[in-house]
Amino acid sequence: MTTPPTHNAAAAPLAHLAENSDAAVTRLIDLLKIPSVSTDPAFKPDVDRAAAWVADYCAKLGLSVETRTPNGGHPLVIATTPDALVAPGAARRVLFYGHYDVQPPDPLDGWTTGAFEPTVRDGKLYARGASDDKGQVMMFLEALKAYRDTNTLLPCHVTVMIEGEEECGSISLPAFLEQDAALLKTGSAHDTVCVVSDTCMWDANTPAITYALRGLVYFDIKLHGPSRDLHSGVYGGSLANPATQLARVLGKLIDDDGHITIPGFYDDVAPITDAVRDEFAQLDFDENAFTADVGATPFGEKGFDTLQRRWVRPACDINGLYGGYMGQGAKTVIPTFAGAKVSFRIPADMNPGKVAQQFTDWIQSHNVGGCRWELENHGEAWPVAVSNDSPWLAAASRALESTAGKKPALVRDGATIPVIADFKNQLGIDTLLIGFGLNSDNIHSPDEHFALDRFHLGCRTHAALLAEVGAMG
Amino acid sequence: MTTPPTHNAAAAPLAHLAENSDAAVTRLIDLLKIPSVSTDPAFKPDVDRAAAWVADYCAKLGLSVETRTPNGGHPLVIATTPDALVAPGAARRVLFYGHYDVQPPDPLDGWTTGAFEPTVRDGKLYARGASDDKGQVMMFLEALKAYRDTNTLLPCHVTVMIEGEEECGSISLPAFLEQDAALLKTGSAHDTVCVVSDTCMWDANTPAITYALRGLVYFDIKLHGPSRDLHSGVYGGSLANPATQLARVLGKLIDDDGHITIPGFYDDVAPITDAVRDEFAQLDFDENAFTADVGATPFGEKGFDTLQRRWVRPACDINGLYGGYMGQGAKTVIPTFAGAKVSFRIPADMNPGKVAQQFTDWIQSHNVGGCRWELENHGEAWPVAVSNDSPWLAAASRALESTAGKKPALVRDGATIPVIADFKNQLGIDTLLIGFGLNSDNIHSPDEHFALDRFHLGCRTHAALLAEVGAMG
Repeated sequence: MTTPPTHNAAAAPLAHLAENSDAAVTRLIDLLKIPSVSTDPAFKPDVDRAAAWVADYCAKLGLSVETRTPNGGHPLVIATTPDALVAPGAARRVLFYGHYDVQPPDPLDGWTTGAFEPTVRDGKLYARGASDDKGQVMMFLEALKAYRDTNTLLPCHVTVMIEGEEECGSISLPAFLEQDAALLKTGSAHDTVCVVSDTCMWDANTPAITYALRGLVYFDIKLHGPSRDLHSGVYGGSLANPATQLARVLGKLIDDDGHITIPGFYDDVAPITDAVRDEFAQLDFDENAFTADVGATPFGEKGFDTLQRRWVRPACDINGLYGGYMGQGAKTVIPTFAGAKVSFRIPADMNPGKVAQQFTDWIQSHNVGGCRWELENHGEAWPVAVSNDSPWLAAASRALESTAGKKPALVRDGATIPVIADFKNQLGIDTLLIGFGLNSDNIHSPDEHFALDRFHLGCRTHAALLAEVGAMG
Repeated sequence: MTTPPTHNAAAAPLAHLAENSDAAVTRLIDLLKIPSVSTDPAFKPDVDRAAAWVADYCAKLGLSVETRTPNGGHPLVIATTPDALVAPGAARRVLFYGHYDVQPPDPLDGWTTGAFEPTVRDGKLYARGASDDKGQVMMFLEALKAYRDTNTLLPCHVTVMIEGEEECGSISLPAFLEQDAALLKTGSAHDTVCVVSDTCMWDANTPAITYALRGLVYFDIKLHGPSRDLHSGVYGGSLANPATQLARVLGKLIDDDGHITIPGFYDDVAPITDAVRDEFAQLDFDENAFTADVGATPFGEKGFDTLQRRWVRPACDINGLYGGYMGQGAKTVIPTFAGAKVSFRIPADMNPGKVAQQFTDWIQSHNVGGCRWELENHGEAWPVAVSNDSPWLAAASRALESTAGKKPALVRDGATIPVIADFKNQLGIDTLLIGFGLNSDNIHSPDEHFALDRFHLGCRTHAALLAEVGAMG
């Protein structure tokens, strides 16, 4: 196997990373102990504590650190290399973006060990956030630390931006970008590339660069009915039960062919070109293995295969249902309200604001017998599709090949990182998505974990990438 | 106003009840403090405690008490008058049926004062079970106490049967009736009448005798999907989301005209005769006031009015929805399961076992993309329709007119009391439903209450009824 030599500038940091890998894991464990669940107000003090931890760590790396709370949301940590740390004449800047917030740990009884009691088993670190995204954030910070600890000047300027609202829609980011864009770049946007490690490898042995993401629209829809819970015998059949009506309306959202029924919903969805079909076919994706891995079978929109459904077709999911009696046994009640969490993943060319409006209009078009909707928009994010043949991507490809010993796959992802589109639209900055997760990492579910060998591969790759970007001149 | 004189035999007990009303309320408060929630295993010790309280009270009244736990369920308390308490030559027997178990207090934050901290406000006693059914059970026991305290022999034999599973489907009753029917009657079934106080007055000033009830079929249906919670971006669209599929199936259960779509569901529903139409019309029921009282408007099966929908038409209600993320904010998860509590109220001539089978078949007829149903049957109860011109009913009517000063309305009720059909089918015993609740008592919901004047009216009525039954000879 011939792999390109690692760029010289990264030699000492790479050697240092190899020799000090255990200490890096210990630092990650420290951060993982903080239950920084951003979507639940009960965890607010922990979210603040995680932000402070990250800010403190960046300061220890010699970076100039600023913390912002635009709109009073969760803190954004911005850390920038002072010129003294950067090689003279360096022209490029890496803007590393990640998030220190995590998904809720529910359901709690699904965890083998506590979600916030990080534990290593069989070479894997188990904790909420291990893979998404604290583990992947720390890879980059560890790369910086390796340059620092070996007194190696950084081959490029670096800005680190770690936010605390990624898991709840990055609500404050637009305001931040409007007010504080200057913090994120110096000189031309074309000299800056955003680097994100919040995606997956193609498989455990094959690195990947992701060049497209779906956007997201997320609603909490609550249907209010009678002024109090009612006896379903006395009242059953005589007035609108909000749980029944909610189900009746949601039941119409997707037809038996898996199509979303909202009028005009597919208007902006691009047809799948032959080129895309070929590209996907070359990946040799095993859709049965993919779904069997989570105890399921391929199922979805008729006329499309699994990769198409995940990457270039919209999806609608009910993420939660609640209302009425949810305990053990029976309670014969007509509840005063019932609700659902409903989200849409939208591929390139769809507009999240338009989808939100279409869904709102559709929901309100039904006769629900006098019940009243309360719709709460929990965030809209644009889809992303970046060029897959840029010089940035070539540099990242070289870095990955040098550390992983294998050319990266060029892939898409069905998930969403809200900020990427904002970086492009508002700052003109392109993004490289270089992630080290795997779908089997259980992100967003119990027993989330991150294999330590992938964590260390990520640390090395970021060290190499800084050198490759610096070498672009 | 001319009302019939109270039967002489009840004169002393009635006077005693009037003089000792506060002490009766104190005793009821004692019982209401026990959170005997039968459907939730967590409350099992409290259920047992309530059973013991009732048994102890019956023993203090001089009754012979037996406690049975058929099938290991919640205790059934059976108490019988020894001959020494009964007037010589008395031929009739009143079998009083009630329940000491209560509905769950959820949602807890809807209560002004604690569900199990009974509180009197404005002449109303607030607590879970105040009206359904502890308050109404105690009316009968207080009537017995008044006979006892005044050394008045009872004009008829009495058996008291207070169960602890009414709110969870009276699961153990069939086994009890099979094994212990002899405890409930002596001699001919035609000499015995069952009396139940678990229904409503027509309005706050008009007593009622209820002669028909709907039956009940109650399921917890749970749809299992992927083996773990999944990230809805990575997996969304590519496999069956159980929350989405559950809503899709439930959404088909009732069409836009309010008809239940299960094939054959209406086959056994009797058409509404002109006689029934006339009977309902004479009640002068205000459907708008009825629904406006709970912040709603009339809504339901097309082609029927509110009384018809409540009393002689089946109804299907979703009593609860659960699954996925139910907390604050957003979590982009495809849940591993989602579920619903689904119940049917069925009028006379429908068969609960048949409905359960039809529903089960219907649920399983849908393509849910490889998800797996777990159906739990939480109880089936037959509907009831008894004769509305029997001598028993005439006796009850006289008792009510004497205590309430007004002829009772003859009505139906949409709710269910599982045991009534069993008494008729297995023991040949007819039932008198004489209740003192009101729909505004908030039974099954927060701030359940019972007006003390109705409680005292119930005590007096039962005292009078015993005399009327005795006088039937």
